[in-house]
Amino acid sequence: MRPLRLHPDRALPAEPGVRDIARRIYSQTAELPLVCMHGHMDSAVLASDQPFSDPAELLVIPDHYVTRMLVSQGVNLDALGVPRLDGGPVEADPRAIWRLFCTHWPLFRATPSRYWIEHELAEVLGLDVQPDEDSADLLYDQIAERLASAEFRPRALLQRFGIELLATTDPATSDLRRHAELHRDGLAQVIPTFRPDALVHVRHPDWLEQLALLGKLSGEDAGSYPGYLAALAQRRQAFVAAGALATDHGHLTADTQPLEPAAAAAIFDAALQGRADPAAEAAFAAHMLFEMARMSCDDGLVMQIHPGVLRDHDPAMHALRGPDKGFDIPVRTEFTRALQPLLAAFGRDPRFRLVLFAVDETAYSRELAPIAGVYPAVRLGAPWWFLDSPDGMRRFRESVTETAGFANTSGFVDDTRAFLSIPARHDLARRIDAGYLARLVAEHRLDEDEAALTAVDLAYHLPRAAYARRSRQIGSGWSSRHAG
Amino acid sequence: MRPLRLHPDRALPAEPGVRDIARRIYSQTAELPLVCMHGHMDSAVLASDQPFSDPAELLVIPDHYVTRMLVSQGVNLDALGVPRLDGGPVEADPRAIWRLFCTHWPLFRATPSRYWIEHELAEVLGLDVQPDEDSADLLYDQIAERLASAEFRPRALLQRFGIELLATTDPATSDLRRHAELHRDGLAQVIPTFRPDALVHVRHPDWLEQLALLGKLSGEDAGSYPGYLAALAQRRQAFVAAGALATDHGHLTADTQPLEPAAAAAIFDAALQGRADPAAEAAFAAHMLFEMARMSCDDGLVMQIHPGVLRDHDPAMHALRGPDKGFDIPVRTEFTRALQPLLAAFGRDPRFRLVLFAVDETAYSRELAPIAGVYPAVRLGAPWWFLDSPDGMRRFRESVTETAGFANTSGFVDDTRAFLSIPARHDLARRIDAGYLARLVAEHRLDEDEAALTAVDLAYHLPRAAYARRSRQIGSGWSSRHAG
Amino acid sequence: MRPLRLHPDRALPAEPGVRDIARRIYSQTAELPLVCMHGHMDSAVLASDQPFSDPAELLVIPDHYVTRMLVSQGVNLDALGVPRLDGGPVEADPRAIWRLFCTHWPLFRATPSRYWIEHELAEVLGLDVQPDEDSADLLYDQIAERLASAEFRPRALLQRFGIELLATTDPATSDLRRHAELHRDGLAQVIPTFRPDALVHVRHPDWLEQLALLGKLSGEDAGSYPGYLAALAQRRQAFVAAGALATDHGHLTADTQPLEPAAAAAIFDAALQGRADPAAEAAFAAHMLFEMARMSCDDGLVMQIHPGVLRDHDPAMHALRGPDKGFDIPVRTEFTRALQPLLAAFGRDPRFRLVLFAVDETAYSRELAPIAGVYPAVRLGAPWWFLDSPDGMRRFRESVTETAGFANTSGFVDDTRAFLSIPARHDLARRIDAGYLARLVAEHRLDEDEAALTAVDLAYHLPRAAYARRSRQIGSGWSSRHAG
Repeated sequence: MRPLRLHPDRALPAEPGVRDIARRIYSQTAELPLVCMHGHMDSAVLASDQPFSDPAELLVIPDHYVTRMLVSQGVNLDALGVPRLDGGPVEADPRAIWRLFCTHWPLFRATPSRYWIEHELAEVLGLDVQPDEDSADLLYDQIAERLASAEFRPRALLQRFGIELLATTDPATSDLRRHAELHRDGLAQVIPTFRPDALVHVRHPDWLEQLALLGKLSGEDAGSYPGYLAALAQRRQAFVAAGALATDHGHLTADTQPLEPAAAAAIFDAALQGRADPAAEAAFAAHMLFEMARMSCDDGLVMQIHPGVLRDHDPAMHALRGPDKGFDIPVRTEFTRALQPLLAAFGRDPRFRLVLFAVDETAYSRELAPIAGVYPAVRLGAPWWFLDSPDGMRRFRESVTETAGFANTSGFVDDTRAFLSIPARHDLARRIDAGYLARLVAEHRLDEDEAALTAVDLAYHLPRAAYARRSRQIGSGWSSRHAG
Repeated sequence: MRPLRLHPDRALPAEPGVRDIARRIYSQTAELPLVCMHGHMDSAVLASDQPFSDPAELLVIPDHYVTRMLVSQGVNLDALGVPRLDGGPVEADPRAIWRLFCTHWPLFRATPSRYWIEHELAEVLGLDVQPDEDSADLLYDQIAERLASAEFRPRALLQRFGIELLATTDPATSDLRRHAELHRDGLAQVIPTFRPDALVHVRHPDWLEQLALLGKLSGEDAGSYPGYLAALAQRRQAFVAAGALATDHGHLTADTQPLEPAAAAAIFDAALQGRADPAAEAAFAAHMLFEMARMSCDDGLVMQIHPGVLRDHDPAMHALRGPDKGFDIPVRTEFTRALQPLLAAFGRDPRFRLVLFAVDETAYSRELAPIAGVYPAVRLGAPWWFLDSPDGMRRFRESVTETAGFANTSGFVDDTRAFLSIPARHDLARRIDAGYLARLVAEHRLDEDEAALTAVDLAYHLPRAAYARRSRQIGSGWSSRHAG
Repeated sequence: MRPLRLHPDRALPAEPGVRDIARRIYSQTAELPLVCMHGHMDSAVLASDQPFSDPAELLVIPDHYVTRMLVSQGVNLDALGVPRLDGGPVEADPRAIWRLFCTHWPLFRATPSRYWIEHELAEVLGLDVQPDEDSADLLYDQIAERLASAEFRPRALLQRFGIELLATTDPATSDLRRHAELHRDGLAQVIPTFRPDALVHVRHPDWLEQLALLGKLSGEDAGSYPGYLAALAQRRQAFVAAGALATDHGHLTADTQPLEPAAAAAIFDAALQGRADPAAEAAFAAHMLFEMARMSCDDGLVMQIHPGVLRDHDPAMHALRGPDKGFDIPVRTEFTRALQPLLAAFGRDPRFRLVLFAVDETAYSRELAPIAGVYPAVRLGAPWWFLDSPDGMRRFRESVTETAGFANTSGFVDDTRAFLSIPARHDLARRIDAGYLARLVAEHRLDEDEAALTAVDLAYHLPRAAYARRSRQIGSGWSSRHAG
C-alpha cells in the first residue's frame, strides 16, 4: 500500500527562496482560529451531535465535488449510493461505495478534492495509507472505528478544529430551532445566515409553500406584497436575534434593478396565480436584491451575493436525483451594470456591507476589483466553488490585489457542507496566500513583516471585520495600526 | 552567421529544482509515438509521396501563422508568393520568398512558430544556422538538397516521425480515394475525419454544389431534408469503413438547439431556393450539431466541436486570396447554454463522446472544466490555434485541471497542415505538460511517479482513448491501474 | 520611523537565475530616455513652470488612484480636500490631508500606487522614511522644502526625468496656446494629442458649447454636419502644426460602424435640437471613429482607441464632485466585430496606424493579439489604467506575445496626470518587461542578446515608431537589423 504523508511544504511555492519566506509567513497563520463566515454545514448535525454514520456517507455520497468527478469518468450515481427521487434502488453497502471511490482515487490528481481529502484522512482521521483498491477495506475499517469514538463526534471536532465562528446557511423560513439548541448548549459560535432565495424566485417550485411558511412563522400576511416585505424584515430580525451576521443570495445574475412598488406588487400577485413568466421572475429577483440591501441598511446584516451559476444543467438528472449533484455550470456574469442601481443607492452608505462572490474569473480585474477598490460598502469574497483551488486562489490574488488591495477582500470562506474538510480548506487558503505574499516579498514589492501582518489579516481579521454587523462594527480589521 | 542549436531544456521551467523534475518527467514521453488525432495534413501528399518542392512552398507560403506575422509588419502577400484568385502576378521565385522570410525572422521571437521552425530546421532538416539575411541562401540550398533525397519524402518522414495514427480532415463529400490508396499501401495509420461544415451551413457559397455531390456519392436524394440526413448518415458510414474515428465541426458558435423536423425541413427547402437568411442558417447549423450527435450515438464516431472564430474578417483579402490567410479572428464563445440541449440529450449516453475545443480562454475555468468535470461524454480538447503555445498550453492546464482533472482532457492535437512541424508541436506540448506536472510535484501536490504516469497518459493514452470509437472502446486510457 | 529604501531588484523575478538575467536586461533600458506618447500632464504646468504648491496638492488630491483606495475604506473625499461642485467646504489644510494619506499607507500594499509613490518619495524627492502617522509631518516638511527649490520646478524635472517626448491630451477645441509657448521656449518635446470625445458624443453636456468653440476656432460652420467634419479636419491640421502625432478616443465601446452621410447628418441635426437618443448618440460615436480613421489616412495622425470604461458609475458622486473621482468601472469589451468595419476599410492602408488599448484582459489573447498579429495598421497599446501594474503588465506580455509578437505592440505609455510618477511608471514597465524576457531566456525560448535588443525596442524604439506620423515614418523601430 502506498503511504500517505502530508508534506509540510505542500502547496507552498517551489522556488526555495520564496518557499522559505512563505514558510515563515504561513507559520504566523497556521494555528489561528478558523472564522467560517460562509458555509453549508447542517446545524442539525451539531445540535444532535450524533456520530457520523460511515465513511461513504461522510466522505463520498453527499460530496458533489467527489461524485461529479466519478460520474465524469462513467461511474453511475446509483453505484455511489446517491438517492433517487423515484425510490429506485441504489447501492446500499457503504463499503462497496467506499471501494468504488478508492479505486478511482487517481482521478483526483491535482484537484483540490485530493488536497482536502488527504488532509482529512491524515490530519483529521490519523490514517497513513492512500486510497486505492488494496487499501480500501483497511481505510474503511479505520475510519469507521474513528467515527465511533467520542472524539470524532461533531461537537468534539468543532472544538478540535478551532472553529471560532461557524455560519450556517438557512432558508428564510427556518425556525432556527437547531441554532437555539446550540446556543442553549453554549455553542454560540454557530450562527445562522439568512437565505431567502426560494422566496424571491417566484417560479421556484416551492415558492407558494415557502410563502405559506413565511406567513406562518412571521405572523404577517405573506400573501400580499407589503405583507411579504414585512414578513421578510421580520424573519431577518429573528435571524439577528439568533446571532446571524449576514444574508446570502444565490442568483443567476447580479442584476439589482429595483421596480416601482406597484410593479413589484403586480408581479407578486401574478405569481400567486401562477402567471409570472421567466422575465417577470428575473425582474422580481433583481428588485428583491435591491430590497434586501435596503433592509441591510436597517438591520445591519451583511449582504452576500454569489451569482453566475446555471443550476441543474441536465434536467433528467435533476428530475431523477434533485439539485446539487454536480450538474451546475457557471455562466458569464456581468457586475458593473448589474450592480449599478444597488451601489448608487447604498454603495457609500456606512450602514451597508456587500460581499461579492464570482465564479467567473474574467470579472476579477475588470469589474470586481475596480468596484471593491472604490465603493466603501463592497468587499470581495474569496474565490468560490470551482475556484477555491490552489491555482484558482493564486489567480484571484494576482488579479484583484493590485487594484483593490488586501483590505477590500473579505478573507477565505470555506463554503462547504463537508465538515471534515473545513480545516483543510482554510489551511490550503493560508498556504496559497502565504505563497502569494512571499512572492511579493521576494520581488521586493512588500516587506516581510508587512506580509506577515497581511497574512494574519487575510486569515483572521478581515473575515471578522467584513462580516461584523454594521451597527456594532468592531474596527476595520485592517492591521494598519501595526504596520507603521 | 548565427548558430542554431536546440537547447535540451528548451520550454522547460526555469527554476532549477522544478526543471530537474520536469526533465525526468519529459524523458518518459519524449520518445513516445505520436498520436495525431486532429490535423489538416493533405492525404494526397502521403498518397502520392512526391518530394516536397522547395523551402518556400514547404515552410512559408501555405503557413498562415508565418505569413500573417509578416503581413502584420507590412509585407505584402504577393511578395510571399501567396496566390491571388484574380490570377494577378505574385512572386514566383521561391528563393526570393525564402529570403524575405529569413530577413524577418526576429519578428517570431517568443512565438510558437519560432519554436516549431527551429525544431524543423535543426531536428528534421539537420541545419545549424539561424535564418537571417546572410544565411538565407545557404539554408535554402541545404533544405532543397534535403528535400530531394528519398529520406525526406512524405512517407519516409511519417515513419521517421513515429506517427502511430494520423487523422486528416476531409469534407463529407470526399471520395476518400487517397485514404483507400494509403490503406492499400499498408499505411492504415492515416485515417480520415468527417467534416460536414459546408453541408450544414446553408448559405455557404458551395452549399448547393456540395449537396449535389453528396447526393451523387451517397445515392440518396440529398435534395430533400430526409434524404439529406440519410445521405449524411451514409457518408459517415463510408468514413467509418475508411477507418475514421471522428467527426469535426467548425462553427461560429457552440449552439446546439435542435429544431422540430418540419422546421428544419422548411429551412432546408428555403435554402434550396436561396431564401435562407443568416438567422435561419445559424438555427439550422445548431440543429445539425444536434443531429450529428445523434448520429454519433449510432455509428460511434467521436464528435469534435471547435467554435468561436469569425472567418475572413477582412472581406477584401478574402475576395483576393480566399480563406485561411490569417484574417480569422476569435470571438467570445458561450458554451454552458449553447451545449445544454445536446448534453441534456446525449451527455450521459455511453455511446457518445464529445471533444470540445475553444479559442476563448475565458471559458476554460468557467464553463469547459465544469462541463467536462461532470458529463461522461465530454473531453476537453487541447488548446487550439492561437493557444497551442508555451504559455497558452500552461494556462490551459492551470485553468482546467483543478476542476476537470487530467482524465477529462483529450491530449494534445497538432491541428496543423505543416507536416514538418508535427514532431515539434507534440514535443513542445510534452515539455509544457512536463513543466506543469513538475511544478505540482515541487509544490508537493503530486508525487513524481504519479506525475510521470500522468505525462504518459496526456501524451499517449488519453488521445487514444478519447478518440476510440465508442463501440469498440479500448479502455479509459487512464493509468489509474498503474498508480495504486 | 520606518526606513524607505528602494531595492535595486524590486519588481524583478524572484528566482535567482532568472533575476540575474533580468538585471542584465534591465540594465540596458534603465537609463534610456522616456518616450511618453500617451499621458494627461497639464501643459499649463510646464508652460507656467510655477513651483508645485504642496505635498497634498501634488501627490494626493488629484490622484484618483490614491483617493479611491482611501474612499474604499471609508475615508470621505471632503477630508481629502477633493473639491465639491456645490461649493461645500472641504478640508483646506494640506498638512491634514497629507497626514490622512500617510496613516492609510498600508492600504496600498501590493498596489502599483505604492510602487510609484515610493519611487517618487525616494528617487525624485530624496526622502528616506515611509509614510505613516509618525513620519507624516516630517515628510510634509521635507517635500514642501524640495518643492520650493528651483530644481523641483516642472521644467527642471522634465529635464531631469530624461523625457524625450511628452504627449499631452487636449480637447479638439484647445487653442494650443500653452504648446505654442512651450515651443517658443524651446520645449518642442511637449506635444499635444487631439482628443475630440466631447465633440463626437452628441449627448455630452458640453456638446453644444464645444461645437460653438469648434466653429469659432476653425472658422468653419460647425453647425452643419459637413461643416463639422471640415472643422474637425481643420483642427487636426492645427494639432499637426503644433507637433501632434496622434489622436485619442475614449469611447464606451469599440464600435466603428460607419453611417451613410445622410444618416450621420440626420443624427447631427437632431442632436442640435436636443433630440438625439442614446442609441443615436452611440451610432454617431461609432461612425465618427470611422471618420477619424479616414482623416488619419489623410493627415497621418496615429489613432488611439481606449474603450470599455463606464464612466461615473455613481451618479450622486458625479453630481457632487464631477468626473475622474475613481468611480469609473470597466465593462466587457468586444473588439473583433466592433472594429471590423474600420479594419476592413483601413487596416491594411499604409497611411493608417491604430493603437488599441483595453482594460478588459479577456480580449488580449482572444481578440487583440490575433488582430494586431495580422493587420499591418494595428499596434497593441500597453496595459492601461487598472492593468499597468506589475502582474497586469506581466499577464499582458504572456497573453499577447505568442500571437502578436513584440513588434506589434506599441511600448509603454504612462497615461498619467501625476507628473512625478512618470519615471516610476516607465521604470516599473521596464523591470516587468525585463523579467518576462528573462524568463524566456531562462526557458531557452530566446537568446539573451535578442532579449536585450527586444527590451530596448519595447522601451524606446517601438513607441517612437508606433507613434511616428505615417507620412514621415522613421523606420519600423524594430531591431531586426541588429539581430541577424
